[in-house]
Amino acid sequence: MTPILSKRDLTFQLFEVLPTARLPERERFAGHSRELYQDVLNLAYTVAERHFANHARQADLHEPTVMDGKVKLVPEVAGAMKAFREAGFFAAHHDEELGGLQLPWVVMQAVMAHFQAANVGSSGYPFLTIGNANLQRVFASPEQQEKYMLPLVEGRWFGTMALSEPQAGSGLADITTTATRRDDGTYSISGTKMWISAGEHELTGNIVHLVLARIKGGPAGVKGISLFLVPRYRINPDGSVGESNNVVLAGLNHKMGYRGTTNTLLNFGEGGETIGEIVGEPGQGLSQMFHMMNEARIGVGMGAVMLGYAGYLVSLEYARERRQGRLPSNKDPQSPPIPIIEHADVRRLLLRQKAIVEGGLSLGLYASSLVDDLQTGPEEGRSDAGLLLDLLTPIVKSWPSRYSQESLSDAIQVLGGAGYTRDYPVEMYYRDNRLNPIHEGTEGIQAGDLLGRKVTQAQGRGLQVLLERIHADLNAAEGLEGMSEIRQGVRDAVQTSQAALTKLISQAADLGPDLYLANANAALEMLGHTVVGWMWLRQASVAVRALPSASVSDRAFYEGKKQAARFFAVHELPKVPIWADLLGRADRTTLDMQAGWF
Amino acid sequence: MTPILSKRDLTFQLFEVLPTARLPERERFAGHSRELYQDVLNLAYTVAERHFANHARQADLHEPTVMDGKVKLVPEVAGAMKAFREAGFFAAHHDEELGGLQLPWVVMQAVMAHFQAANVGSSGYPFLTIGNANLQRVFASPEQQEKYMLPLVEGRWFGTMALSEPQAGSGLADITTTATRRDDGTYSISGTKMWISAGEHELTGNIVHLVLARIKGGPAGVKGISLFLVPRYRINPDGSVGESNNVVLAGLNHKMGYRGTTNTLLNFGEGGETIGEIVGEPGQGLSQMFHMMNEARIGVGMGAVMLGYAGYLVSLEYARERRQGRLPSNKDPQSPPIPIIEHADVRRLLLRQKAIVEGGLSLGLYASSLVDDLQTGPEEGRSDAGLLLDLLTPIVKSWPSRYSQESLSDAIQVLGGAGYTRDYPVEMYYRDNRLNPIHEGTEGIQAGDLLGRKVTQAQGRGLQVLLERIHADLNAAEGLEGMSEIRQGVRDAVQTSQAALTKLISQAADLGPDLYLANANAALEMLGHTVVGWMWLRQASVAVRALPSASVSDRAFYEGKKQAARFFAVHELPKVPIWADLLGRADRTTLDMQAGWF
Repeated sequence: MTPILSKRDLTFQLFEVLPTARLPERERFAGHSRELYQDVLNLAYTVAERHFANHARQADLHEPTVMDGKVKLVPEVAGAMKAFREAGFFAAHHDEELGGLQLPWVVMQAVMAHFQAANVGSSGYPFLTIGNANLQRVFASPEQQEKYMLPLVEGRWFGTMALSEPQAGSGLADITTTATRRDDGTYSISGTKMWISAGEHELTGNIVHLVLARIKGGPAGVKGISLFLVPRYRINPDGSVGESNNVVLAGLNHKMGYRGTTNTLLNFGEGGETIGEIVGEPGQGLSQMFHMMNEARIGVGMGAVMLGYAGYLVSLEYARERRQGRLPSNKDPQSPPIPIIEHADVRRLLLRQKAIVEGGLSLGLYASSLVDDLQTGPEEGRSDAGLLLDLLTPIVKSWPSRYSQESLSDAIQVLGGAGYTRDYPVEMYYRDNRLNPIHEGTEGIQAGDLLGRKVTQAQGRGLQVLLERIHADLNAAEGLEGMSEIRQGVRDAVQTSQAALTKLISQAADLGPDLYLANANAALEMLGHTVVGWMWLRQASVAVRALPSASVSDRAFYEGKKQAARFFAVHELPKVPIWADLLGRADRTTLDMQAGWF
Repeated sequence: MTPILSKRDLTFQLFEVLPTARLPERERFAGHSRELYQDVLNLAYTVAERHFANHARQADLHEPTVMDGKVKLVPEVAGAMKAFREAGFFAAHHDEELGGLQLPWVVMQAVMAHFQAANVGSSGYPFLTIGNANLQRVFASPEQQEKYMLPLVEGRWFGTMALSEPQAGSGLADITTTATRRDDGTYSISGTKMWISAGEHELTGNIVHLVLARIKGGPAGVKGISLFLVPRYRINPDGSVGESNNVVLAGLNHKMGYRGTTNTLLNFGEGGETIGEIVGEPGQGLSQMFHMMNEARIGVGMGAVMLGYAGYLVSLEYARERRQGRLPSNKDPQSPPIPIIEHADVRRLLLRQKAIVEGGLSLGLYASSLVDDLQTGPEEGRSDAGLLLDLLTPIVKSWPSRYSQESLSDAIQVLGGAGYTRDYPVEMYYRDNRLNPIHEGTEGIQAGDLLGRKVTQAQGRGLQVLLERIHADLNAAEGLEGMSEIRQGVRDAVQTSQAALTKLISQAADLGPDLYLANANAALEMLGHTVVGWMWLRQASVAVRALPSASVSDRAFYEGKKQAARFFAVHELPKVPIWADLLGRADRTTLDMQAGWF
């Protein structure tokens, strides 16, 4: 059986590094307990292993097709959705009155992590459905929630987000799908949406699309964009499913990976009217959508972490079992070959994976805990939590997407030729994860968001909160044994990053926006590595404190944490000054390159 | 039509950077001319485009299968092989008496580059066949050459190299296939070989396997390994193909990419005797095979370069045409979207690709020119050329394999969602190239070869030659305009690398072999970047000298070279000190990690 995730590490992250066990002290989580959370996580593990992991390769080998106008998936997907629904996970974080458990978001994210690790393609359907419902919970009217959201919370219908168009992917300001107001206050939607995941299938009785469109006669640019609830089938007054709403499947995209999630081209208003309801006020579409998008971005980052994590576990198991070669110091050809985990370079490949995926998991769960702090934490800390979450979101989305790809490449490398074949899942994870730096905002979009908006937002308060928290953890780690490399590494990274940003920001007016943003990627890399270094500082601090009284198996676990922190400090953090240098002196290399010179 | 390669750049590399046009001054190449070489390259372009590029995607979509015991390929492969044969490329570098043109190896490598770029899967068959014949040309007896080599030179039969076994991939010392001497001096071969590319197919009348095996009763380890010529069908005294030699296809490997090249598990001596002839003396197998392997390693590196290059050209074309968004300085939402090549971050993705693939091409052709210098250059320089080639081979194999993968990731990123679909070839190149860091010796094997053998070989003469040549090019570039970054970057990289290696080597005895080699990967990275930096110094020097009298289109070309060199200096070379630091102070992080701590 392919391992899904490390229960020991998840427990460590949630209950030793993060104060998840203290969340029941908050009013919304009253009556919860660490035991409840553990039970929910155990249930997630069981359902993910039995009903998601079972068909990950099947879904990869048999990508969705269209037969007789209907999307055909491998049959196990329906079983997975049923199991997910019956376990109550569509509603688990919602209010009790909606049938939920009021689970904290950090626990919910950890629940979802199991499904992402087990089968990222099939997990796409519940992910989009949950995100869609969450958006409605905030912005839709009570009547709309009753009509469009409740069926999603119950898992009876699924949801999508329909933003991109063939001519407008990263440039959402240029979407052209139109909404024409009808006499009854609803809108007639017309246009084409591209890259719509889960845009068509027969898994549920209906599909609720959240569609960005322009109301005819509205302003150009983002101010003219509104958000609409558009069902696949119209909904009768009694809530039952009625006739077709003329959302027509125009084609499927054939992807390198992530094949279990159908990806579609949809025409709205083809062969008949497509009717939608506006969410909130006109012109609010993009900002409303970003509510779902920000949640989706953390979800993408976590998905990347979990793919990398799954690959790491496969390669670790392989490295313990596969025997090959001898240590350089052993010249006896008659001695038996050793498990490859004994070779220093294989250790490097494993240690790098560990540093990436456990660092990424730490970051994803930390960000998820900020969602809880923003929503249910002490009143006085909510603003800071929100600003820090805003700042971290592009990093949480991008860093694991990029580095899990490197980690998965290392996993393949550990397996050698075997890793390049379908006999093992690592090549599939590698193909799956390559989508993550692209969807829900490319790396370029994230970098621009980080440097162009987030670091200076609210007079730089988010950045200031980040720096304060890192320094607090650095100070707390003072004197802890065996942590000099990670302490020094994080301290240097923070100082270097801060200096580069301060210098750049102080010159912003002189540089102008094009040059100011020219090295946005370097900012994303620099802060990404710094933040993950911080996550390793936090993990190592917990490990060092826990070591003296730890059991034998826990001792090994904590020593591994210390060593991975050291690895990140020695092998990865020294890259920070390179990015800081490009950024701080506003390097012009890319900007000066002319299109005609390529 | 998908672009194959840049003719302008190939001309630049061969005739402006390298002195290929002066090779006809050598006796073996008398009568050749630059025009002849250009004609051969033009023919290669035409054949590659018409007969190889035409079925790259087909071969990817329809991987080899076994039907009725026979391997079935897409039919276009046979047509490609016929076209390649009819163009005379199987023999082009061979002696005139064998029907060849006596092409220099650097030109032959450039010819082959076209086929690697057009269809790396189908190019595998001729590559292995040519390599097999080249090995026979050096080590096989005249009778064996007549019997086994000539049909390969004529392209009538194909060849393979059969080294790995299920239990012995990187650890070739542990192969167990046995050879039992028969009364007539031939050998009975028995065992199983794994990962044998082109191991079975119906493209040719016979297949000549070069098989590593142990003669029964011989010594353990590598000293007991010999090399055997083992045909698929036995060969009659008149050279015609006879009965089966009992080499049985036990299975196909199902790969993530590189699907056009059948990859097989072969049983020798199953259901009947498999007879082979020994090549040269017993116990010479590995060193003989390394003759082919070293050639294959340069071929792998060049294949990686060409996949990266093909991806770069696709993404460049896309970036010029696709319109999306506006510059940060443009706040007018009514203005039309701009071609994405205008965005700084897309320029970065393109410039990085350019720096990688053109730097890699420069390196691959430089190494190929060393093969010529070794074989046909002035007598007094041959030893140095050979030692430098030995030193560079692991870098030529590994650096493009690793960095073309990053380059191809950048190509996908430029295309965004489109790059993740089968509508464009970049996702295929990305899957194809991921094999290159694995086959013909993994990165770990290459790193160990470089640091454990090559840098100290012949009292470090190879390294000394490298340093001398870099310094000579640095001195020659003194005073050239607009090259300060690349000059400084290369100078720093060389000094840092040399210092780290000197320090490490001086402590080798104290450190012991395990610690000495623990950071071999860092040595491979450090010298790889340094050497590619040198290649950019050389290219930029030529460009700067050519600029004053260049045509308008050439001016743009040369400016692009200068800017890519600057990019490599500013974005890539600063990584060298990080690797040098790990190496110079013999970092223990990976070695200290315990298997039980993961």
